[in-house]
Amino acid sequence: MNSPAIDLIGYAGAVCNATSFVPQLLRVIELKSARDISYSTFLIFAIGSGLWIAYGLHFHALPVILANAITLLLPFGIFVLKLRYDRPGRV
Amino acid sequence: MNSPAIDLIGYAGAVCNATSFVPQLLRVIELKSARDISYSTFLIFAIGSGLWIAYGLHFHALPVILANAITLLLPFGIFVLKLRYDRPGRV
Repeated sequence: MNSPAIDLIGYAGAVCNATSFVPQLLRVIELKSARDISYSTFLIFAIGSGLWIAYGLHFHALPVILANAITLLLPFGIFVLKLRYDRPGRV
Repeated sequence: MNSPAIDLIGYAGAVCNATSFVPQLLRVIELKSARDISYSTFLIFAIGSGLWIAYGLHFHALPVILANAITLLLPFGIFVLKLRYDRPGRV
């Protein structure tokens, strides 16, 4: 059982990481453009999130698991919107 | 002492998250534009990384600490380049 304080720090980090991609997603939707966005960044980030979920499962670290579950979905959404708005090109 | 396998998964996640912003940074430099990039995303992400460093320090989880130390620096670099290339405007 972890102390509530360290769990709170973990959850705050989780909330920041998880919500950080929301304004990016909204900006792409608003501009209907993702020209300056890198495909590779969001692909590599999604793979990293998957690995962190495995790591968090091992330690039963719920903030790690939750944060990375959400940060798998949002970059994936940005990736799909870039596929929609841009012609596939350079990464 | 953690098992080498779970440490390896943690380090692989760390490498993915830490390197994911490299292609984004290179793309902004190449295009000399960060119009489609969201200020808020990289600011919130940097705050989240700081909180995860505190969380990782508590558990002596070196992959968490290293990953977030590097992912503090790269989004900060993207943020600075956006300030340079774009006029400050909407987040």
